[in-house]
Amino acid sequence: MEQSCLFCKIIAGDIPAEKVYEDEHTLAFLDIHPTSMGHMLVAPKAHFENIYTLPDDVAGKFFVTTKKIAAAVKEAVGADGVNIHMNNDPAAGQIIFHAHIHIIPRFLGDGFEHWQGARDYNEGEAVRIAESIRTKLL
Amino acid sequence: MEQSCLFCKIIAGDIPAEKVYEDEHTLAFLDIHPTSMGHMLVAPKAHFENIYTLPDDVAGKFFVTTKKIAAAVKEAVGADGVNIHMNNDPAAGQIIFHAHIHIIPRFLGDGFEHWQGARDYNEGEAVRIAESIRTKLL
Repeated sequence: MEQSCLFCKIIAGDIPAEKVYEDEHTLAFLDIHPTSMGHMLVAPKAHFENIYTLPDDVAGKFFVTTKKIAAAVKEAVGADGVNIHMNNDPAAGQIIFHAHIHIIPRFLGDGFEHWQGARDYNEGEAVRIAESIRTKLL
Repeated sequence: MEQSCLFCKIIAGDIPAEKVYEDEHTLAFLDIHPTSMGHMLVAPKAHFENIYTLPDDVAGKFFVTTKKIAAAVKEAVGADGVNIHMNNDPAAGQIIFHAHIHIIPRFLGDGFEHWQGARDYNEGEAVRIAESIRTKLL
């Protein structure tokens, strides 16, 4: 537990939250500033800042819980779909530095637009970028 | 393999893609209409339409690969952060009905805004919605 972490305090029960699901490794609770009704947050109970450093077993359990909650939320609020969203680092909109996934119920015609593809790759560019990513995986 | 599925064809090698990582269960390749350079797609090799019906073992491996690629992409393109994003159903922006996660490199000041919390819950509303989700998990 990180003493200064809001989500660690929620997980420890020191700060109240509308908890929906809990198991040994993960917790799911309502976002108090929902994008749409039923907007959920899923977090591993252990403190990791973001996706990059999650151990494999934690990452796997984290997403299995996310899947389970996504199906339940969709049915419970009668949504037409759900977005799964995770912000990693401030540049990506992360505010609480305890890894968490947003589950956002969506409704046909709700008016939310997401970023669009800005442009296509120039010739040779995709090959070069793909190769630079591959070298980081070696 | 679904005969009409674009991603099944990419996985089978029948349609080319800039593949970055592949293992027994998952494939990661460049989105050809990138939101930002290095925008990746990760998919399970087996055909599942979206998150709801993924078996637990597939879901776990899917996210472990996503984590691995997210860290590599961030380093490779020198990003300041990454968003993980998954659209499930047309109402949530899903276009290809083979489950996949977007990894979107982000840069400080790139100007992308995401949906903001529309409003807070009215009194009693969060409790009611949380309870309705819990009943779907029984």
